Amino acid sequence: MMSGAENFKNCGSVLVTGANRGLGLKIVDTLASGGFPPGKIIATTRNPAGAQELKELAEKHSNIHIITLDVVSQESIQKAVEEVSQLVQDEGLNCLINNAGISVLANFYTVTAENMIENFRTNTVAPLMITKAFLPLLKQAASRGGADGSRSMGIHRAAVINVSSMLGSMELNGREMATKWSEGYPYRTSKGALNMVSRCMALDLEPYGILCMAIHPGWVRTDMGGPEAPLNLEESIPSTLSVIGGLTEKDHGSFLNFAGELMPW
Amino acid sequence: MMSGAENFKNCGSVLVTGANRGLGLKIVDTLASGGFPPGKIIATTRNPAGAQELKELAEKHSNIHIITLDVVSQESIQKAVEEVSQLVQDEGLNCLINNAGISVLANFYTVTAENMIENFRTNTVAPLMITKAFLPLLKQAASRGGADGSRSMGIHRAAVINVSSMLGSMELNGREMATKWSEGYPYRTSKGALNMVSRCMALDLEPYGILCMAIHPGWVRTDMGGPEAPLNLEESIPSTLSVIGGLTEKDHGSFLNFAGELMPW
Ligand SMILES: NC(=O)c1ccc[n+]([C@@H]2O[C@H](COP(=O)([O-])OP(=O)(O)OC[C@H]3O[C@@H](n4cnc5c(N)ncnc54)[C@H](OP(=O)(O)O)[C@@H]3O)[C@@H](O)[C@H]2O)c1
Ligand SMILES: NC(=O)c1ccc[n+]([C@@H]2O[C@H](COP(=O)([O-])OP(=O)(O)OC[C@H]3O[C@@H](n4cnc5c(N)ncnc54)[C@H](OP(=O)(O)O)[C@@H]3O)[C@@H](O)[C@H]2O)c1
Repeated sequence: MMSGAENFKNCGSVLVTGANRGLGLKIVDTLASGGFPPGKIIATTRNPAGAQELKELAEKHSNIHIITLDVVSQESIQKAVEEVSQLVQDEGLNCLINNAGISVLANFYTVTAENMIENFRTNTVAPLMITKAFLPLLKQAASRGGADGSRSMGIHRAAVINVSSMLGSMELNGREMATKWSEGYPYRTSKGALNMVSRCMALDLEPYGILCMAIHPGWVRTDMGGPEAPLNLEESIPSTLSVIGGLTEKDHGSFLNFAGELMPW
Repeated sequence: MMSGAENFKNCGSVLVTGANRGLGLKIVDTLASGGFPPGKIIATTRNPAGAQELKELAEKHSNIHIITLDVVSQESIQKAVEEVSQLVQDEGLNCLINNAGISVLANFYTVTAENMIENFRTNTVAPLMITKAFLPLLKQAASRGGADGSRSMGIHRAAVINVSSMLGSMELNGREMATKWSEGYPYRTSKGALNMVSRCMALDLEPYGILCMAIHPGWVRTDMGGPEAPLNLEESIPSTLSVIGGLTEKDHGSFLNFAGELMPW
């Protein structure tokens, strides 16, 4: 069976935010356990001390490096950049996966300005601030990968992957199962806004040869996804990693799902 | 020549936010000066004392009512709802135009979390908080308009109009003239997010017969639009008001431009 990680064999380093549980932990596990693991898997969490499962994984796989990163703290972001710089040296960072996220539940009647801003800060603003801070390392990786004169894009050079959601799609909002979910004001808005940030960043990262896109990992049984989600981690993550590993310049600025299908904005 | 306000003849009351200058002021002027002005034009501004042009308009037209409303202050919103209640009594509010907005300029290199949140608070969160607060008055107007058993939607019953922008379109970002504008991180994100709020609200307002949609007024020469904008106020507002005045249930949840054309998300 495909682990989905095969495509990462040409990727020197991957950084995953929110890697202590849920989709982020499964990404790290799948990458580390696949046949062709990236040289360095940088698993970040805001609280390494409490990240039991991640620590166990790191004991088994010497290429997993745990680094502290609270995505809403600029100070924490700066410290993480310094630690990652030490780790990757002049190879730079090939793949940044902005995975950490929260879902603040509030419907039309209960939603407040504070709810909206809290979710926006973590899901929309943080991926932007993290990408800005890691730009020097991403540029370094992209320019090395392009040293043969190739203008191709992908995780063999550098890529920014924003973990978005189908709930961030305006087109799908009000259709199918999404209709029934009335508590999604802060979350839907934050993910729609993340898609716009992703579009904006795609324009600015393109000159450096850094790919940027948004991905919907499917609706998955995690703490956030809940027990009624149709997919388990094994049905989402290997497939999601296959898509990420196979990205090329034609996917730059896109919004895809875990099966590689184009999502409507 | 069409003033665009004809369609408002069946609309008892309109409220416009940010009515002291730019598009908001022109909306009030056009509605008041048209052949069939709405019974009550509620022009709100955060600083009535400084709203010279608006005050001059209100002296000429007795149906213009100036009310204080700072869209980012929950206290100010509550006070405005009370004053508007007094004014419209049991007729309710037919048309709420969320027009007030700001454009915080920042590119990929200069954008900060604070920039992003400031623009989000005014352009995305405020229209949501204002719509929530005015819901009782909108419901009242919608139920009166529907008293004949008609399930139709439009400004003869109740409507929420969110003034969005083509710069909030993900699809158009990176195409045509929009490509060249690198300073739009906070603004584009806030308007993309407003479109999602508009989609969410459309689902929740539908059971009450309240129409909800987003409109792009064109790129217009105002303080915000700047001197290179292709349209003047006269080329945008009468047409925008024609579109708003002609909305029906088929436009519920849509994103249209000032010419009535569907905009891509
Ligand atoms: N599950 C789904 O069905 C689904 C569907 C579409 C999209 N997504 C997206 O996929 C991503 C992962 O979701 P999930 O299902 O794995 O959620 P989850 O099980 O709730 O895990 C969320 C992760 O994000 C981390 N996080 C939250 N705020 C953080 C912060 N300020 N700094 C650092 N880490 C932070 C959490 O760390 P702590 O343990 O420290 O809180 C945790 O590791 C999210 O962006 C989510 O929106 C999920
Ligand atoms: N002009 C364009 O080309 C264009 C294109 C697409 C969309 N739009 C949108 O159209 C709307 C109006 O734009 P415009 O061109 O008329 O802009 P403008 O000339 O800059 O006027 C903005 C208006 O919003 C008000 N405002 C801002 N923050 C406020 C607050 N906290 N409380 C109350 N009022 C507040 C301003 O009041 P103060 O005078 O007190 O600051 C002013 O009345 C905005 O939503 C804008 O994003 C404009």
